[in-house]
Amino acid sequence: MADLTEDELLAEVLPLLAGPRRDRLGPGDDAAILESAGAIVATTDTMVRGRDWRDDWSSPEDVAAKVLIANLADVAAMGAVPTSILCTLVLDPQTPVDWVLRFARGLGEQCRRYAVSVAGGDLSSAPAGVAMVTIAAFGELPGDPVLRSGARPGHVLAVTGPLGRSGVGLALLEGASAGGPVGGELPAAGVAHHLRPSSPLGQGPIAAAAGASAMLDVSDGLSRDAARLARASGVVLRIDGSALAPDLNWAETYLPRDLARACVLNGGEEHSLLATFPNAASVPAYWRVLGRVETVPDGANPQVFLDERPLAEAGWDHFHPAR
Amino acid sequence: MADLTEDELLAEVLPLLAGPRRDRLGPGDDAAILESAGAIVATTDTMVRGRDWRDDWSSPEDVAAKVLIANLADVAAMGAVPTSILCTLVLDPQTPVDWVLRFARGLGEQCRRYAVSVAGGDLSSAPAGVAMVTIAAFGELPGDPVLRSGARPGHVLAVTGPLGRSGVGLALLEGASAGGPVGGELPAAGVAHHLRPSSPLGQGPIAAAAGASAMLDVSDGLSRDAARLARASGVVLRIDGSALAPDLNWAETYLPRDLARACVLNGGEEHSLLATFPNAASVPAYWRVLGRVETVPDGANPQVFLDERPLAEAGWDHFHPAR
Repeated sequence: MADLTEDELLAEVLPLLAGPRRDRLGPGDDAAILESAGAIVATTDTMVRGRDWRDDWSSPEDVAAKVLIANLADVAAMGAVPTSILCTLVLDPQTPVDWVLRFARGLGEQCRRYAVSVAGGDLSSAPAGVAMVTIAAFGELPGDPVLRSGARPGHVLAVTGPLGRSGVGLALLEGASAGGPVGGELPAAGVAHHLRPSSPLGQGPIAAAAGASAMLDVSDGLSRDAARLARASGVVLRIDGSALAPDLNWAETYLPRDLARACVLNGGEEHSLLATFPNAASVPAYWRVLGRVETVPDGANPQVFLDERPLAEAGWDHFHPAR
Repeated sequence: MADLTEDELLAEVLPLLAGPRRDRLGPGDDAAILESAGAIVATTDTMVRGRDWRDDWSSPEDVAAKVLIANLADVAAMGAVPTSILCTLVLDPQTPVDWVLRFARGLGEQCRRYAVSVAGGDLSSAPAGVAMVTIAAFGELPGDPVLRSGARPGHVLAVTGPLGRSGVGLALLEGASAGGPVGGELPAAGVAHHLRPSSPLGQGPIAAAAGASAMLDVSDGLSRDAARLARASGVVLRIDGSALAPDLNWAETYLPRDLARACVLNGGEEHSLLATFPNAASVPAYWRVLGRVETVPDGANPQVFLDERPLAEAGWDHFHPAR
């Protein structure tokens, strides 16, 4: 990358990001202009090499797909439709130009797939060895936003998308690289969701239209994210353990039972959508009921139960990565 | 920072960022909601420790003020009024909590000063020794945006704000830390604009209303940014050397003539606004005329002249920081 100037590199990168022209003005000026009808949903999420990805596991295209979906899932979890992004790359000048171009090509492909445009961004240099990608994503709200705080006793808790797939993939990759219990070739289906998570983005606005009372995406693990929803709403969430059987069964095809269970309950970077609905009849197709919303007993705090037992928060914490 | 969980740290940081509630929803949900009347201006800019700031020169409050103004100047340079930001911190977990809290307090103060709200953000961990701050900033357009591409032959080139102040500050700091030509105590006025640049934000919309045909902010140096405007508009810009006398005189009170001249022509992080106007009568108060817009001669390229000589682009390039 040190062979090119910033402007020369941008001249190579920008054509790779061309997409649907939703915005009045794309990259190249001081700022982008996002069209909107009343309100814009905005979020941002960052990935750092060595913390959020490893170059020996993730291709530049994987990194692009993963940081994009993490952002778009946050937009969908508000009940919104993603429309555009800004992308910031902060890279060691010794980063191969090929890495940057593959990242940009991958990002462009994924953005076209989701009908999202790259409205702008920033390119900056990092200390030796450092690579960091930040996306800010924007979306349109077809109706009212769905916050985390609207769950009420009597409502139904439901999820769309799997639980624990990304965690299983990470455990398989870590096991393999530690020479651990997973021998031989890595099962592609087991690691796929970790390297390139998908998210049922279209279900966000569908849930909103169906009357979802609260919603978020599972980015730091079911136990931690469900607890956030419980606290924001001031309620108890009670998860029916039997509802997790499909996820546990899938995880146990790859991992020992205890580890499989930990992946389903605490695995992050899943980007499935977790929501509450006023009643079972309002839960849309492609969602499955996980449990119910209850009143916080006198003297107790909002929290999550798995059947009769409190579910400890054990998901991802950026500053305490031990799981 | 490693003594707190992410949620605990956020609980300390968020109250420091409280500001005008322009947005329907602030930090704490999956995404923020930005109110808008038709279109939102969006930009993003990053600062990395060791590249964009040094901890021995810049306090956490300085870093917050500097990255904020770099973003708000981009918004103003479109002719827009800044309204809100998202802020991303990517920090080594060993970063002192005090640094984070001082950064947040400084950012909150500056945001209130500019009537901008912190709508959300992200907190992530970095490899040892790394600290990085990204802001995405948003603004409202009172009228049509002012792009870089609208300068036409016959228009007048003007600037509001100084040129070279940040460059002089950097040269003084570098000279002092190299035991160089600057001895004794550093002149506070000389380094102030480098550590905490200001930007005439309000002049962005004023220039737009006055009919500015093109505009940008001087973030990478006059020679480089003027060349960008020239290329985007397909014109020649001719700067009158005598118009730079006030900047040169100020710079020469601190530095030898050659270095002073390089600071005025090439110094970055200045965040003054550079614009073209249809004629001298339309240049608003607090702007000074720097030169004029001319036709590109047949067979030549868009470029910038200083009096009769081409002005070489020598400003900041992230991947070739030598000046």
